[in-house]
Amino acid sequence: MTLIIDCHGHYTTAPAGLEAFRTAQKAHLKDPAQPLPTDVKASDDEIRESIESNQLKLLKARGADLTIFSPRASAMAHHVGTEAISQAWTRVCNDMIKRVVDLYPENFIGVCQLPQSPGVSIANSVAELERCVTELGFVGCNLNPDPSGGHWTSPPLTDKAWYPFYEKMVELDVPAMIHVSGSCNANFHATGAHYINADTTAFMQFIEGDLFKDFPDLRFIIPHGGGAVPYHWGRYRGLADMLKRPHLRDHVMKNVFFDTCVYHQPGIDLLFRVIDIDNILFGSEMVGAVRGIDPETGHYFDDTKRYLDALKLSDADRHKVFEGNARRVYPRLDQILKGQGR
Amino acid sequence: MTLIIDCHGHYTTAPAGLEAFRTAQKAHLKDPAQPLPTDVKASDDEIRESIESNQLKLLKARGADLTIFSPRASAMAHHVGTEAISQAWTRVCNDMIKRVVDLYPENFIGVCQLPQSPGVSIANSVAELERCVTELGFVGCNLNPDPSGGHWTSPPLTDKAWYPFYEKMVELDVPAMIHVSGSCNANFHATGAHYINADTTAFMQFIEGDLFKDFPDLRFIIPHGGGAVPYHWGRYRGLADMLKRPHLRDHVMKNVFFDTCVYHQPGIDLLFRVIDIDNILFGSEMVGAVRGIDPETGHYFDDTKRYLDALKLSDADRHKVFEGNARRVYPRLDQILKGQGR
Repeated sequence: MTLIIDCHGHYTTAPAGLEAFRTAQKAHLKDPAQPLPTDVKASDDEIRESIESNQLKLLKARGADLTIFSPRASAMAHHVGTEAISQAWTRVCNDMIKRVVDLYPENFIGVCQLPQSPGVSIANSVAELERCVTELGFVGCNLNPDPSGGHWTSPPLTDKAWYPFYEKMVELDVPAMIHVSGSCNANFHATGAHYINADTTAFMQFIEGDLFKDFPDLRFIIPHGGGAVPYHWGRYRGLADMLKRPHLRDHVMKNVFFDTCVYHQPGIDLLFRVIDIDNILFGSEMVGAVRGIDPETGHYFDDTKRYLDALKLSDADRHKVFEGNARRVYPRLDQILKGQGR
Repeated sequence: MTLIIDCHGHYTTAPAGLEAFRTAQKAHLKDPAQPLPTDVKASDDEIRESIESNQLKLLKARGADLTIFSPRASAMAHHVGTEAISQAWTRVCNDMIKRVVDLYPENFIGVCQLPQSPGVSIANSVAELERCVTELGFVGCNLNPDPSGGHWTSPPLTDKAWYPFYEKMVELDVPAMIHVSGSCNANFHATGAHYINADTTAFMQFIEGDLFKDFPDLRFIIPHGGGAVPYHWGRYRGLADMLKRPHLRDHVMKNVFFDTCVYHQPGIDLLFRVIDIDNILFGSEMVGAVRGIDPETGHYFDDTKRYLDALKLSDADRHKVFEGNARRVYPRLDQILKGQGR
């Protein structure tokens, strides 16, 4: 019996009290005479309502068991305000995830947002990662390669500036999903361009660099099916060759995993045709970027489990994609599941 | 008998005299006491040598007839120096293409680079477009959506700032390939990230905007197989739906075309599975970004005709992709070919 683990969900439907906190922060940024918010007003009933009528309902309807759950990605908005604003916002967002996990420990497991801020060292995010993993029981984090929100002013992910954070990730044995947030650059629609571009960009940075030589145990999930990478897999194999890099299998793919947030059958078919089964984790990003029903199929675009079911995978491969790979990439998830007798 | 027209080739192998011109420009930028270059020293024999041992040799070896040929994209580098530098560089690059076309009128047809420069109105590129089309006989242009070279400081392509140029394109009845140049942002590898991101970004801008309502006859080729778009076709259909945009077929795909610069069979298979045959133009970007031989096939990565041949298209579809669509998207190419009795 395979557990169906969705590696990619955000709390996009959080109670209004969370948004009110953010609104108060923004009011303070505009007029420092306005007080900073101190806490989030949201009852357990509000959280239950928001989860049971959305993520949990759809999780069950689609036949999945568990979502690796993190704060709303587009709302991280690390480019808004100061580092202190980002720290406070991140903390309440992560605490909200913890409340969901405590209410539904069998259906949700936490992954944290980080208090990144443009121009601020990633070392300043280490404490929140540690708090979330060791105190809240989270199993990973979302790392934003562009906290400027579409201006790309940070160094590449392979730069040593990121290393203090990677050291902590390895020490805690948690992976990061590479996930940008909203865009404040009019060129980039957030979910239609910025997200996908960031995925592609990160992968190419890993080809150019030697990060996994320095951190052989570091693990990243590149979401949205790896951006453009599987579609251009020949290009990336060819560029690695031209740049005299090792074979991608050894150079990148021991450490990088793609989710299945690709919202049509042909895309999923391609993903599974070119990427090794050990590098693919089931994910849907539900409820997320694309919420409608595909008129061509009559099903939700983001009901990615349907596309995977249509692949007719062997039992062994199916187990990897839905459960085994997630337990391997997120060892702390594996520990928690074992503690639950699963 | 179908002509095999490759819609995407750059003069990546130009004689050393062209590069010497650029080097002199850069020396002048560094030290204004250094003189600006006045002309390019390159003999017809040098051009013949560079073409016959590269593009023409491969064109013939791969069974193609004609390449729509433009200056080296990565060398446009609109972010280097001033507008005057860009104007001078653009002019000599375009003149070099004209010399190739004059030497091999049956095998190459010209598309021009534009004298874009960050922060400079695209209206200032109108004159060079007009010169290249009306005086040099070129049939299209390469439009850079990000002349800053990876900082994305221009407005989106749907912004009215671009309209003066679109008016001239429509008047001259020429399409533009949307093609960025080199990247001066360390996050973006030029051919591995910046190119593909720009393709994806442009497509999403077209979804968000209403450009083709204002310019129903405007035509763009998005190269590199449309960036990430075909792989995420469900995402784009779903986003158009969420944004209350018309069906992509009517909203974008009457005006936007993808080339086949996707360097492996599974990618090409996907492209043809999800994108209408009328929107696909054969292209290889040879000799370009990926020059090696795929160890998995024993053939050049960028020999995209092989992937298309493997599709076993109907004669009608094959004719569209290799010839008909190109003649329709580039009406001035059609005119020239007819003048040649082809």
